Amino acid sequence: MTYCIAVRVNAGLCFVSDSRTHAGIDNISTYSKMFTFDYNDRCLAVLSAGNLATTQGVIKQLKREIKEGAFPNLLTQQSLEEAADYVGKVSTEQQRKHSGEAIGLEASFIVGGQIMGQKQEAYLVYPQGNHITTSKDTPFLQVGENKYGKPILDRIIEPSLSLETAAMTALVSMDATMRSNLTVGPPIDVLIYQKDELCFSRRYRFEEDDEYLRQLKAAWDQQLRVAFNGLPPIPWNGSWPQVQEEVV
Amino acid sequence: MTYCIAVRVNAGLCFVSDSRTHAGIDNISTYSKMFTFDYNDRCLAVLSAGNLATTQGVIKQLKREIKEGAFPNLLTQQSLEEAADYVGKVSTEQQRKHSGEAIGLEASFIVGGQIMGQKQEAYLVYPQGNHITTSKDTPFLQVGENKYGKPILDRIIEPSLSLETAAMTALVSMDATMRSNLTVGPPIDVLIYQKDELCFSRRYRFEEDDEYLRQLKAAWDQQLRVAFNGLPPIPWNGSWPQVQEEVV
Repeated sequence: MTYCIAVRVNAGLCFVSDSRTHAGIDNISTYSKMFTFDYNDRCLAVLSAGNLATTQGVIKQLKREIKEGAFPNLLTQQSLEEAADYVGKVSTEQQRKHSGEAIGLEASFIVGGQIMGQKQEAYLVYPQGNHITTSKDTPFLQVGENKYGKPILDRIIEPSLSLETAAMTALVSMDATMRSNLTVGPPIDVLIYQKDELCFSRRYRFEEDDEYLRQLKAAWDQQLRVAFNGLPPIPWNGSWPQVQEEVV
Repeated sequence: MTYCIAVRVNAGLCFVSDSRTHAGIDNISTYSKMFTFDYNDRCLAVLSAGNLATTQGVIKQLKREIKEGAFPNLLTQQSLEEAADYVGKVSTEQQRKHSGEAIGLEASFIVGGQIMGQKQEAYLVYPQGNHITTSKDTPFLQVGENKYGKPILDRIIEPSLSLETAAMTALVSMDATMRSNLTVGPPIDVLIYQKDELCFSRRYRFEEDDEYLRQLKAAWDQQLRVAFNGLPPIPWNGSWPQVQEEVV
């Protein structure tokens, strides 16, 4: 399994991904799922989830076609949307290569970044090759094991957040997911992109024993306990009528 | 879909369940999923998730066998564990009745409460009829759509919590789930059981427009924002080396 998040705020973008892959629960490996394409007029991040053979095949093809100057390649796309289209096309090609022999070769991607003169954007590319982007109401995208980490994103993420808070929220979302799903695990890659920089200057990796991640987790657990003290107590006595149980 | 929670703390038990059922996304109904069996020497709560025909069949059979004084019935069980066994047996019987004609008739149950002279307990009964109970490390059980609401339970629930805080935590977990999964919805049933009372005196129902639920949700959203202010800021500058991306 995998968990990748992209957040689009007014100030830019942030991306967080785990690094665990598995073929069965007793065959666990570590592979980064975050790939960057940093060129003069554009910087793009591609995050991958799904079948590892497919995602490796896609990333290799994206890199090879740039290197060979093929047309089209990731650098010839006129917009982020076109780039997402292109990644979707490469992905469906890779899936089809082996679709006669196997099932479960599906992969999903997040494609985000900025092209000079355009806005920063992020897209979620489905296994079918089609895609969606963020909106004001839903300024984040997730691929992989998305359920455990969604409530905190739902409650906190909004376009006016600072990049730092957006990254922390995504890290808390990742932590919740790692705690509940063993097939999502460190190292955790974090990429912060401030809009109009047109290069990726802040990419970090948190290893399993990282001191900051440990502190963040402990502080969050503690803050949540505090948060409960700020909730309105349930007025148990008298506010609601007792319920008469329905006779089935 | 459904979401039901049982929490076992030192002080007693609390149960929370939603009331939405659906057959396809355009066929939504409201059914409580919480049933209580309150007798002299015991009080038991049964929460249900899964196929509505199966769960109704099970609850009806449980009630009918008590009424008819059949042996065994829910009142002849010597322990909570036996009661869970019995619910499992009734459930597999009900599933088998129609298993030739259809699939997807599975149901899960939470069975919790107390029998005089014994401890308060809660069991999760799987569709296969077998069951698990809580532990010190995992003092809660969930059936139905469990992922969205699990992180908050993981972080907060522990045996020393008060019943009130346990109930609030379960309500926050329910709120997170309702927000993310449309097939989980109000009214929300809440049952609080203080150990050794041997009767259910605090059962409540929160309707969709309940003022307290609204307040709780707003306060929780606000407290979470505050919680982020208490987190250690990410020391972006210089603490970690930049990552050199792996060449695929």
